Parts: sequence; structure tokens; C-alpha cells
Amino acid sequence: MPELTGNVLVAQSGGPTSVINASLAGVITEALNHECIEEIYGGLNGVLGILNEELVDLASESQQTIRALRHTPGAALGSCRYKLKKDEDFDRVLQVFEAHNIRYFFYAGGNDSQDTADKIAKLADARNYGLRVIGIPKTIDNDLPTTDHCPGYGSVIKYVATTVREMAADNASMPTGDFVSILEVMGRSAGWIAAGASLAKRRDHPNDAPHLIYLPEVAFTKEKFLEDVQRVLRREGYCSVVVGEGLVDEDGNYVSVTTSGARDAFGHAALGGAADYLKSLLEEGMNVKARTAKLGYAQRAAVHCASKTDSDEGFLVGQAAVKAGVAGETDLMVTLVRTDGDHYGVETGLAPLSEIANGVKQLPREWIHEDGVSMNHQFVRYALPLIQGEVPLPFDNGLPVLAHLDKHRVAKKLDPYQTA
Amino acid sequence: MPELTGNVLVAQSGGPTSVINASLAGVITEALNHECIEEIYGGLNGVLGILNEELVDLASESQQTIRALRHTPGAALGSCRYKLKKDEDFDRVLQVFEAHNIRYFFYAGGNDSQDTADKIAKLADARNYGLRVIGIPKTIDNDLPTTDHCPGYGSVIKYVATTVREMAADNASMPTGDFVSILEVMGRSAGWIAAGASLAKRRDHPNDAPHLIYLPEVAFTKEKFLEDVQRVLRREGYCSVVVGEGLVDEDGNYVSVTTSGARDAFGHAALGGAADYLKSLLEEGMNVKARTAKLGYAQRAAVHCASKTDSDEGFLVGQAAVKAGVAGETDLMVTLVRTDGDHYGVETGLAPLSEIANGVKQLPREWIHEDGVSMNHQFVRYALPLIQGEVPLPFDNGLPVLAHLDKHRVAKKLDPYQTA
Repeated sequence: MPELTGNVLVAQSGGPTSVINASLAGVITEALNHECIEEIYGGLNGVLGILNEELVDLASESQQTIRALRHTPGAALGSCRYKLKKDEDFDRVLQVFEAHNIRYFFYAGGNDSQDTADKIAKLADARNYGLRVIGIPKTIDNDLPTTDHCPGYGSVIKYVATTVREMAADNASMPTGDFVSILEVMGRSAGWIAAGASLAKRRDHPNDAPHLIYLPEVAFTKEKFLEDVQRVLRREGYCSVVVGEGLVDEDGNYVSVTTSGARDAFGHAALGGAADYLKSLLEEGMNVKARTAKLGYAQRAAVHCASKTDSDEGFLVGQAAVKAGVAGETDLMVTLVRTDGDHYGVETGLAPLSEIANGVKQLPREWIHEDGVSMNHQFVRYALPLIQGEVPLPFDNGLPVLAHLDKHRVAKKLDPYQTA
Repeated sequence: MPELTGNVLVAQSGGPTSVINASLAGVITEALNHECIEEIYGGLNGVLGILNEELVDLASESQQTIRALRHTPGAALGSCRYKLKKDEDFDRVLQVFEAHNIRYFFYAGGNDSQDTADKIAKLADARNYGLRVIGIPKTIDNDLPTTDHCPGYGSVIKYVATTVREMAADNASMPTGDFVSILEVMGRSAGWIAAGASLAKRRDHPNDAPHLIYLPEVAFTKEKFLEDVQRVLRREGYCSVVVGEGLVDEDGNYVSVTTSGARDAFGHAALGGAADYLKSLLEEGMNVKARTAKLGYAQRAAVHCASKTDSDEGFLVGQAAVKAGVAGETDLMVTLVRTDGDHYGVETGLAPLSEIANGVKQLPREWIHEDGVSMNHQFVRYALPLIQGEVPLPFDNGLPVLAHLDKHRVAKKLDPYQTA
């Protein structure tokens, strides 16, 4: 493969994670090692910034800032949910690449983003434009295929499991015998995050919180729920429930919308989410007190409780993307491959972008305990290594210090473009 | 004051905080220093455990466990919301004290708990039973009078401000121009916690998140809310809102119940809370996307993000309670007194329990910015010292290690008692 000299463009897409900027730091750090790479540009707000030629010079950021990216949530370059639609969009991307001599394109994102990267790679190839496109996995949802797990997932479940363990210590304090704590976590279509809450149990303490986990993978019924809660209340005197926001009933409909039929003052469906729905069932079906908490976007931004393993792997996949591009690879995404052996270890691999774009990794049904409301040892063996270690976080005046990029703009060379 | 030899009873009451067990550790540690103190007992579940003679031997707990109390949320001895009602209850308390030669009673709690402690102290005095009763301040709500602030408050606002700062980094990533993030925090009757979110702003960055804080102290109107949000969206491209759960309208009614009139499937009022209510207003009144998060009990248990200043002060008030009792004081609560000078410092003081029981410390109106949705420098000067420092937390297998008391029971000496 001939050496390709030119500039790097790195961009971020989709919902952020606690470690998406660790990958960005990995790309920048590694790119500086290669003479074939001249400039390191960032595209603002994913493909949107590329279409609009909004590029920033990342090499001019201070080393301090780049280091701080390793503990800064959100997408430091800005993200987007924009989907390239028409042929003109793709043409424009290549025009921008050509104008700025972009020869290496690294795109951090989930399925949709890797689909976009795949199409750009194939178009460049068809046009004989020398371009190396490498995707960087990123999603708290942990649903990308071929990779063992996704950077971002370990941190979100470390935070959720920590929260469950802490809340349980609080809940257990009150001797009412009828208190139910319901924590709602993200995961619209899969229970990966809710499942991760199970790590809050101490080893050999199966009765620790969380006592009941409701996953989108297991059809929800009110009857079993009330039985489950009653059983736990009798045993523990309180009950810790974790529910994934995407909980569905036996017909596959979201419970929070369709089953409860809750309406707000204006007749909108689904004011409350899954946790509020479960609370309403308890208040109707049993005489118990329930309180909900919903971590919302806090969970994907909680870098103060991030996993060092996850953060390091986030950095690693950024580095690996650059190495793969420089080595002549293209139209691939970096994957994490779990090594064999007694101790956890990962290596990076590569998988076709088209495979990532069109697949979804489900939570294996056989990792769910037969009671339907807890995870078995197979899940724990998979997930526990991902939350190991804590990210050292600098504090100033009592609060974590986050990176703020200077974002020195690269001069535009093209006429403005009309995005959809 | 003659020396009083006998046993200590310490108990915890009301809603836990991240540092209520630091106070317990302070009591135990200090009690070991005094020869007039023979046994150190804990009462399980506050006054309930006293009525039921459920006492545990705290001196037999390992030193490791006592040290771990400094970073364990929840009330390690169990808490209660039980109120001593009839004369028989008070008689029973004194019988239990006499049976176990309790001469020092330390009670950690809020207004109601200090009221109970006050009555016990006065009854013992009237009966000529030698007893020293010292209250230990505890509440995330920061609403106890005479003390500069309450242990528990610094930690909850450190966690809330950290969460706001992290979520803002995430929110700012998405360039939609119409995204509103709404975080609901505790505080049924006062805005102390919501106000604390303002610390998330960096110094000299007044436009940092949180952009809008809605406090129970400021009557809420829909019209101003929509204007506020529109102004921020135009300026920042996204909007970070923090709302106290006790938000009220111009008539003093909780907005989440009375204004929205939201009903769940069973006709119950108030499925959603204040955040969900604000979200519904935005979706009705403006074409914007809003997402809510509600920290719930996670915020008062988040020891992984506790303030070292707060934790140390929690320990200090526990120690001070024992010192005061041994010195012959009774019917008083330990207070925190801010020292004069350029740098923050505290000493402990003492205040009559009856004063604590009957007062509430309001958030000063003059600390709220005239815009009604942010805090001014007076609040920051008050609150910023309270979140300084981080509590070193041992992790095992990726999660914080919490204390679990052995709770060796003290043999009962009385007949069972029938609680209400």
C-alpha cells in the first residue's frame, strides 16, 4: 500500500459518551507520530461541519487541553444526528476533503455514523480519490456488532451500578417495610445498561440491590411485577428496582406510552417514563410507597464516575484508527477483541463498516437469569472487567475541570453549501 | 458540673445524607477518649429502636468498619420517621435509658428529631434522671436555624453542580438550537439545593450552565418561563434548567400537582414531578425538544461525589456532641459557626434544641439574582467553601466499598413495648 500524505479529519457523531473525547485525544496523539500526516483537523458537529466546511485546527490546541479531553464528557467537537441524504451531500463531502487535502477520515459514532463513513469510503474509491476511512466505535448502548463491547458502555454502567449501591444503602435505612425505589436508565431498544446495574451486588450477596431489573428483552406484565415486588419486600423490607426506558409489554409496545395511557394537561401521551409507570402500578395495585429517579443524560456524561478501563480503551481505539489508516486500511471500523486467558485483556481489530452499519448486538438471552429480573454469572463475567479502575480527575474549587477547545478555524476555501 | 459515668446511646433519624455516618464515626471515635463513657450503643432506626430496646454494641465493630462509615451513605444504624406521640412513649424511652444506664444521648436529625431530643432532655431533667442530650445536625435541606449550614448540604450540592457541569458539556454538543435539559433536584419547601447548582458555573463565565434555576422561593409563571428559555436558546443554542421539586405558582401551590393537573392511568394526580411539568409547558408553548432527569434519592446518597469539607464537618459535629455532653451540657444541638477572616473556617457551637425544633432557615431572598433564575455572588461566597475537597473512596472491583455494621445486639432487659 503506497504511503498517502495529507491531512487528517476527525469528527464525532450521535449521542456523546463519557469517553468519546478520549478517542479524540487518541486520534490527535497518534496522528502526531506519523510524518505522512500533515495537518490534524476536526470537523465541527459531525458531517454537518464537513458540509459547511467548518473545520478547526486541532494541532494548535494546547497539550493540556488534549490531555483534559480524556476526562471531558460531551462531544468536544460537537456532534450531530444529521444524515447525509442526497448524492449532492456526498459530492460536497468529497469536495471539502479535496479542498483541504483530507486523506484520513476518522469518524466516531454508532451504527448510523458508521453507515455514513462506509458510503463516503466507497464513493472516494469509486472516484479514485485517495482516502482512508476508519470508524471509531462509540455508544453507551453497547449495541454495535463485531466489537466485544463499545467504548462508553463501561463508564455508564459503572456510574449506574455505583448509584444503585449508594441508593440501596439509603433505602435500607428506612424500616417501613413497604418502600420501593425505582431507577430508570437509558436503553431504548436493548437492556445493556439496565443489565449493568446488576454489578452493584457484592460477590456472594445475591440478595443485594438491585433486587429487580426490568429489561426491554423480557416482556413486562403487571401481575408478575407486583408479585416480584411483594416477594422482595417480604424478604428485604425494601425493594430496589432498575428499569430500562425501553420496557415493552407482551405486544412489544413501550409500557410508558401505551399501557398506562398517561396524558398530561394538554393531552400528550407519556409525560412520565417507565419508572413513573411502574410507580403508578404499585400505588394502584399495592399499598406501598415508591420513589423514582431518572438519570437521563447525566448517565452518559458522568465522567466523575467513569471507568478507567473504558477511558483507556476509548483512547486506544482512537490511536488504532490512525494506525490502521496509515497502514493503508480503509472502510473499516476499529473493534475491541477480548483476548483469551484468565485475566481480562483487549486487542484492537478491524471490521467492515458495512457490517457495523447493518447489525445490532443484542443482549444475549442466556445471560438473563431464568427469573427474568436479574443477570447471571455469564453477564457478570462479561461486564465486570469493563468497570475496573477510576479516571483521575482534576478538581478546581470543588468541581471537575473539563476541557474547552480553542477551536481555531481553518480558512474556508469553497462557496457555502445549502444543507437540507 | 459533676462527672456523669455511664453509657452512650447514639441514633439517627429522618432522611439520610452522604455524611450522616461520618457524624456517627465522630461520636464513636470521640466517645472512646472519655473514661466516664463505658459502653457505646447504637439505637436501631432512631427512636423506634429505643422504644423496642433494639440496641447494638458499637464498640465491638472493627476499626476498619468505623473508618468506612466516613464514606458510607444511608443511615448505618437505620433511620425512622416515627414521632414519639404519647406520654407512654417518653416514659418508655427513659425506662430503656435507665435499664441500660444510658447517660449520654446523641441524636442526628433535622427539626423533628431535635424536637424529640428536646422533649427527652426536659423529661429526664424533670424526673431527676441524669442524662445529657446533644443533637447532631443533619439534613441535605440545609434548613436548620442557628447553624451556618448543615452537614449533608455541601455534598448534595457538590454532586448536583458536578452533574450540571457534565450534562452541559453533553448538551452543548448537539447543535439543534432548540434543546432544553431539565434537571429536577430535591427541596420540597426551600431552594437551597437548586441554588447550589449555580456553583457549576466557572468563575467569570456567567453564561455557563445552569442557565435557569427555578426555586420554590420565586413564584413560577408559565409566561416568564417560556421567555426565559427563549432568551437562553437564542444566546446559547441550548438551555440548561434546574428546578427544585417544590416549585410553586403564584398562589403557593405545587406546580407539578395543581397547575398541570396531570393524572395517571388510575386518575392519580402528579405522576410526573416539576421537571416533567416544565417539559410539558415547553412542548405545548414552544416547538422545542426537552429531556428531563431527576436525581431523586441518588443525590443524598452520592458519596462517590461527596465534599471532603462536608464529610470532615460531619465527623466534627459528632465529636463535638460527645465533648459537649461530657462537659456537662445538655438539651443543645451542635452548630457550625463560620469564623471571621479571608479564608473559610468553622468552629462548633451549641444552640438550644427548642430553637432548632421550631425554626426553619430560609434561603435569603437577597441572595437570589434580580432575574429570579440565578444566584448572586453572596450565595456563591456562602456555598462555594462547602463543596471543597473530595472524599478518598476505596474501590473494590470497580465500585465503592461501603461499610456494613455487624450490629451485635445488646441483650434486652425489659418487656416488649407496643409502638403506635
